[in-house]
Amino acid sequence: MSHTHKDQDALVMRVRRIAGQLEAVERALTSGADCAKTLHLVAAVRGAVNGLVDEVIEAHLLEHVAAPGLTDAERAEGAAEVLQAIRRYAK
Amino acid sequence: MSHTHKDQDALVMRVRRIAGQLEAVERALTSGADCAKTLHLVAAVRGAVNGLVDEVIEAHLLEHVAAPGLTDAERAEGAAEVLQAIRRYAK
Amino acid sequence: MSHTHKDQDALVMRVRRIAGQLEAVERALTSGADCAKTLHLVAAVRGAVNGLVDEVIEAHLLEHVAAPGLTDAERAEGAAEVLQAIRRYAK
Amino acid sequence: MSHTHKDQDALVMRVRRIAGQLEAVERALTSGADCAKTLHLVAAVRGAVNGLVDEVIEAHLLEHVAAPGLTDAERAEGAAEVLQAIRRYAK
Repeated sequence: MSHTHKDQDALVMRVRRIAGQLEAVERALTSGADCAKTLHLVAAVRGAVNGLVDEVIEAHLLEHVAAPGLTDAERAEGAAEVLQAIRRYAK
Repeated sequence: MSHTHKDQDALVMRVRRIAGQLEAVERALTSGADCAKTLHLVAAVRGAVNGLVDEVIEAHLLEHVAAPGLTDAERAEGAAEVLQAIRRYAK
Repeated sequence: MSHTHKDQDALVMRVRRIAGQLEAVERALTSGADCAKTLHLVAAVRGAVNGLVDEVIEAHLLEHVAAPGLTDAERAEGAAEVLQAIRRYAK
Repeated sequence: MSHTHKDQDALVMRVRRIAGQLEAVERALTSGADCAKTLHLVAAVRGAVNGLVDEVIEAHLLEHVAAPGLTDAERAEGAAEVLQAIRRYAK
């Protein structure tokens, strides 16, 4: 992923936060925590992952489809990759 | 989460698999892997988390709303918790 | 759908509003309107349909799973119907 | 929407099919049809609208971001419109 280091670091931080949320889900499951809490934690993970997917799609769209200087073939390939993620995103 | 141990273990395994998928996303980001791969990995995490949320909602619905022997108040509370997760689920 | 008339009327109104939004999408397509507008209209239809699905799932959950006086078999059937809609909902 | 007539006609047909599905939902609501059927019909409308949104996003991405001969400004604007629909799409 050849995007700027700043973007990349931000994405890595985001991934690590979600990993921490997942650990909280595991603790809730293994500690027999109240089910409503587990339900809430899992729904929150989903919201965070949605945000991550948005960010990665945006970065890809701007870097590999819309950016100046790309060839038509590079744009077409980047667009196909974005569409694949969006369709999978909706599944 | 007072569901059967078998269900619980299955959910914990599922959570750990997603954690592994997230580590793969982090490696792709930090190793400068091809963006399309990162996009694909992140969309796959989203699909896996969707499945996890489905499972937890199902368990909660069957255990805390539909199960025999619950009081009307317990059912109403369980239903409210499921609806909250579904609405958040759609956000 | 044996829910109260008030709920039912509200759902019918909601369905008719979405039908109106769809007509606006058709007009945008056939009038050669600006693509961004069509994109915006279609995304708005999706948001409205999400809200409709939420309402119908909620009504079903409260009426056919959590409501007092149902048999265990009725509750199990209602829960299965809700889960089917949720899973399809996430597809 | 200046896409080819063939694409446009296909989208209009798709919109009209969804309008027909919505009419079926209204009939189910007003005729007191079995709730599970209404739930199923509404979830099907949502699936169809998802497909429509996919198609419109794809057309916009290919026509207004990736297509040859666009200026950098046109591409940036088209990308922003796609991202807005995707984020709204995930809400």
